[in-house]
Amino acid sequence: MSSDGLDKLFSPRSIAIIGASQKEGKIGHDVLLNIKEFGYKGRIYPINPKDTEVMGFKAYPSVLDVKEDIDLAVFAIPAPSVIEVIKECGKKGIKAAIVITAGFKETGPEGRKLELELAETARSYGIKVLGPNCLGFIDTASKVNASFAGVSPLTGDIAFFSQSGALCAAILDWAVKENIGFSKFISLGNKADISEITLLKALGDDPDTKVILGYIEDVKDGSEFMRVAKEVTAKKPVIICKSGGTKAGAKAASSHTGSLAGSEVAFDAAFAQTGIIRAATIEDLFDYAVAFSYQKLPQGVNLAIITNAGGPGIIAADAVERSSDAKVAPISKETVDYLRGSLPRGAALNNPVDVMGDADDQRYKTAVDAVLKDPNVNGAIVILTPQSNSRIKETAEVLAGNKREKPIFTSFIGGHLVEKGITVLRDSKIPNYRFPERAISSFNVMVKHKKMLDLPKEGFKTFAVNKDKVKKIIDEAVKSGQKEIPEYTARDIIESYGFRLPKGVLAKDAAEAQSSAEKIGYPVVMKIASPDILHKSDVGGVKVGLKDPREVEAAFNEMVKKAKAAAPNAGILGVLIQEMISGGKEVILGMMKDPQFGPMLMFGLGGIYVEVLKDVSFRIAPILPREASEMIDSIKSVELLKGARGEKPVDIDSIKEGLLRLSQLVVDFPVIKELDINPLNVFPADGKGGCVAIDARISIELEKY
Amino acid sequence: MSSDGLDKLFSPRSIAIIGASQKEGKIGHDVLLNIKEFGYKGRIYPINPKDTEVMGFKAYPSVLDVKEDIDLAVFAIPAPSVIEVIKECGKKGIKAAIVITAGFKETGPEGRKLELELAETARSYGIKVLGPNCLGFIDTASKVNASFAGVSPLTGDIAFFSQSGALCAAILDWAVKENIGFSKFISLGNKADISEITLLKALGDDPDTKVILGYIEDVKDGSEFMRVAKEVTAKKPVIICKSGGTKAGAKAASSHTGSLAGSEVAFDAAFAQTGIIRAATIEDLFDYAVAFSYQKLPQGVNLAIITNAGGPGIIAADAVERSSDAKVAPISKETVDYLRGSLPRGAALNNPVDVMGDADDQRYKTAVDAVLKDPNVNGAIVILTPQSNSRIKETAEVLAGNKREKPIFTSFIGGHLVEKGITVLRDSKIPNYRFPERAISSFNVMVKHKKMLDLPKEGFKTFAVNKDKVKKIIDEAVKSGQKEIPEYTARDIIESYGFRLPKGVLAKDAAEAQSSAEKIGYPVVMKIASPDILHKSDVGGVKVGLKDPREVEAAFNEMVKKAKAAAPNAGILGVLIQEMISGGKEVILGMMKDPQFGPMLMFGLGGIYVEVLKDVSFRIAPILPREASEMIDSIKSVELLKGARGEKPVDIDSIKEGLLRLSQLVVDFPVIKELDINPLNVFPADGKGGCVAIDARISIELEKY
Repeated sequence: MSSDGLDKLFSPRSIAIIGASQKEGKIGHDVLLNIKEFGYKGRIYPINPKDTEVMGFKAYPSVLDVKEDIDLAVFAIPAPSVIEVIKECGKKGIKAAIVITAGFKETGPEGRKLELELAETARSYGIKVLGPNCLGFIDTASKVNASFAGVSPLTGDIAFFSQSGALCAAILDWAVKENIGFSKFISLGNKADISEITLLKALGDDPDTKVILGYIEDVKDGSEFMRVAKEVTAKKPVIICKSGGTKAGAKAASSHTGSLAGSEVAFDAAFAQTGIIRAATIEDLFDYAVAFSYQKLPQGVNLAIITNAGGPGIIAADAVERSSDAKVAPISKETVDYLRGSLPRGAALNNPVDVMGDADDQRYKTAVDAVLKDPNVNGAIVILTPQSNSRIKETAEVLAGNKREKPIFTSFIGGHLVEKGITVLRDSKIPNYRFPERAISSFNVMVKHKKMLDLPKEGFKTFAVNKDKVKKIIDEAVKSGQKEIPEYTARDIIESYGFRLPKGVLAKDAAEAQSSAEKIGYPVVMKIASPDILHKSDVGGVKVGLKDPREVEAAFNEMVKKAKAAAPNAGILGVLIQEMISGGKEVILGMMKDPQFGPMLMFGLGGIYVEVLKDVSFRIAPILPREASEMIDSIKSVELLKGARGEKPVDIDSIKEGLLRLSQLVVDFPVIKELDINPLNVFPADGKGGCVAIDARISIELEKY
Repeated sequence: MSSDGLDKLFSPRSIAIIGASQKEGKIGHDVLLNIKEFGYKGRIYPINPKDTEVMGFKAYPSVLDVKEDIDLAVFAIPAPSVIEVIKECGKKGIKAAIVITAGFKETGPEGRKLELELAETARSYGIKVLGPNCLGFIDTASKVNASFAGVSPLTGDIAFFSQSGALCAAILDWAVKENIGFSKFISLGNKADISEITLLKALGDDPDTKVILGYIEDVKDGSEFMRVAKEVTAKKPVIICKSGGTKAGAKAASSHTGSLAGSEVAFDAAFAQTGIIRAATIEDLFDYAVAFSYQKLPQGVNLAIITNAGGPGIIAADAVERSSDAKVAPISKETVDYLRGSLPRGAALNNPVDVMGDADDQRYKTAVDAVLKDPNVNGAIVILTPQSNSRIKETAEVLAGNKREKPIFTSFIGGHLVEKGITVLRDSKIPNYRFPERAISSFNVMVKHKKMLDLPKEGFKTFAVNKDKVKKIIDEAVKSGQKEIPEYTARDIIESYGFRLPKGVLAKDAAEAQSSAEKIGYPVVMKIASPDILHKSDVGGVKVGLKDPREVEAAFNEMVKKAKAAAPNAGILGVLIQEMISGGKEVILGMMKDPQFGPMLMFGLGGIYVEVLKDVSFRIAPILPREASEMIDSIKSVELLKGARGEKPVDIDSIKEGLLRLSQLVVDFPVIKELDINPLNVFPADGKGGCVAIDARISIELEKY
């Protein structure tokens, strides 16, 4: 594992403990003790100017006094001394450091300054730093426990990283009791240097890690995060619990890590686009982790339910039906016939298969083997309630007995009576859940993950556009300090990226207006053209449905008069004469900047659907063609585009193309802060189809994103 | 406790065990053993023709051979013998029986017949029967364990009943491990006699029960269930997990108990209307139960979060924000000032209050006491992650120490390190949850329950209506075997219940049509009137916007001609001339029969809102005025009625009145099977307001509901 130079952190041949101490209660004591007792085989150097020996190891005043090479330095000294010692580490040629020490960014502006200095110093020496303000790092493969955790983890193939050190400590303790093992266990701390991105990448390459879990409150660089996450989720499941999303949560987050919480829709979009599985709770995180760690991926959506009790079988079937992706397996006639001949009368043979209350281990075996052999079945949950004839431990052994190609989950419901069975299941890596619903959610996310892996590979699509023209327009706007681009300029921008606009001509006087209208064809729309008037309607600057030259002349004169009266200092360029578009369905394409993920596209139906029902979808740009389709398909009112209630379906492909062109535009010009094409009129697919952008609003960030 | 004669079941002075056996493995053995070992103080009579003594008790061949009175008989004999012995019990004057025996309804038509006979026989002797096909009954107050469960429950104030016997056994086992105690534990079995309704009522009156929990798959009588549930939820919380709702679930349900699963919307409506708390999972059921059992009800919505770690604090705050009713408490300035003086620098003083990683028990005490004293705070969750300075057991003791008026929850996160603390919490009845989210959901349902209790008492509202006229119309329809009531008759029905209709006159010829149109005022709508033509539009039988006598005459002739051509045998009464209503917003009021709960009202906005977006709400009739308002307020598109996007708000009160009148109609006439008033045009509130029913469809059940 060598990605991003984390090999010295993950597999150090020698470790210096800065601030190692003989004194119990000191972090420098606990860290050294953990390193020693966890079975680390490399060289250990306590660094402590006051002692010559700590815990049986020769101690050194400074890393510079150690003759041999040191791979990793663990800091457990007060914050003010850290920078000085980082410099010594640099001089010594140490390439990795864990700064457990607190007292940095989380304490306020002073600490933030100190943290920046720490990061810069380390960078100048090429030292990778985990922390500061963290619990430390544990690697069960290389037997490094460079943390002050009171509990050591069991070995397993789940990697866990967390932005909350306290949560690390609690989970470590909890996981031992639940018998969940880890490959690596990492407390991120303040992320001065090593972030979730660096770790994701390294863990994606780590042969000891099968499943990656994370608890985060923000991400450092949204685009990079997405780029790396996409690569990693193709290799192994990444499950993340992200908090700090809601208003109160974000408030707590900012007082905790001083981080800017991204909006929840952006995270949801980013996770969906990268294939990260989002866990709503910490409990879900580990429910899912165990399923992925212990079992094979299902090759399809169909789950079989085998139970010795009706009630829990119904509960499980309900949960499958409610799930987003899993289905109750339609057991084949052959299997049903076989079961009819093998199970006693009274057993329910369709899914859920009820082997009845008096089922022993062999009856379970018969049913489970038959059902899993069925090609219509992609996985099974086995439910057991303790009843007088139940052979609980034996049933667990039967399930554990043979290797299976399809995933299997259990819910042995009960307390002391089922304990021995659960121990057998656990030891043979069959994930058992207290109640069936949790098993079902876990199967469901596995199905989701499998679907993601099966998506056809697809590249970004780019269109031939007039980028130079847009660059010129925007450069000019930036130069003149315009935050809001005037409508007629916004029109130019989106037209340059291939959007069809209503025909339009700028007319300087009434006569020009009339001849333009004649050329465009009546009726026309007229809009006052002024860079200084943003809300044209407010000054009577918009008129629609003008039917003849007389109306156009009157409108021109009235409009200019009213505009001058309302805004005496406004520069008026004339009046825009526009083709009047009617028919089609109105949709909105939009973009706003998310502080963590950058340009986020929005799609929805116009009017009440966006404003009242908030029926919209989001994706982070750039988007794939598939993602453009998803944006359209994932709104509830999509049926209205597909031709609900006997209406004609509209040209959805043209909306999709519009979204892709918009994506290209906002990625090409990060200076664009917000953009609305509202409405975009989409026409019936059986006519000429296509769509026309009636109105556009663009604002830019002068500070440049 | 004497409601419905369950006192002999719940507190028997003597018990006969029919089929008591010396032989291990027999249910008759296990039941007697449980009764004996659980500490029952009354008289025990094993009934067994083959033995003279069982387990040290004198045995009798029949209950008729026992001289003393017997209060309760527990059946553990094969199904075919049950009826005979029930008769003997009747003769002996026994008034309560628990039939554990299986082999009834659940086995098919034969068993169903046997079960009916059992129910009838018992009823004829006045015997209340629990079961058949159940695990039995346990009462921790009267020390009766008349079950064959392998585990005995702890004593507590939670009553639990379940339609699944196997789930009973599993939960019993699980609850002991979780230290959850019960007042009564009841396996309902097939509900031949005693149903969830009887039990709800009895448990509502039971002084030993503080919280009622249930697992059900259906209800026996929806209206009676709702009537009783309303009474009981006013006295104590009722929490129910209902399964068998989804398609697959319902399939499983019908093969399990042969019960007809009610649709989920009906259950959701019934639970909302009666104040029952619906638990989505069995785990939720007990999470909530423990909160209600251990803690006082919060007097408001505001929850304080006290934590020694940022991450879990954020997780908790997020969960509160996401909850339906709870809020993150706005801690008062006074409390914040006090905390600033009492907690070390660096502590977060606003909610979540972060007492920091090195907090000991006393620091927790300071924070918790201060926060709970704050009038802005209605409850608190205390989060602890094990850290090196944590005094876990002592912190638990501090929390347990003083009596509080406000509910308190904990989440001591971890495994072995927090175990001793959790034991202290458990013993002092502070509900502890593995992770904060579960505590928050529990607080949230307590808030919901409190809000329900605080609702002002309200009676049903009835209007003066012409019930006799409707009765006559419907009697006639039933007599003539009409399932679909023709539109002009449906109009009469709803007009009799106070709905305003467009003015309308039935015209027999073209001249009459013209004079009627004159009176009504142009433009008019014309509709063919025939009891034999249901889909008028299909035969060209509807025309709108007719502007003058000429158009009316032409339309009349054409319409009649087309109708005759399309349906030569149809009786044509003429053409309905109607006022043309325009303006206002279109809504739909509807009713459909739910098989378990009867008439269920529906409300939504017309057109796409119902058909495409499925944005509708349901309530079981009769509804209270408050419930009519809830129906309107709970759809997403309600903003469109309230005047979104600069439109005028419509007369919502008139919709509410419409729903109440509809409720009255469908309750007065249970024979109505389905009813749609679609559209009901509602006018702006600032004009004359009101609403007009444009079209109505009514169908009836000839078999009479």
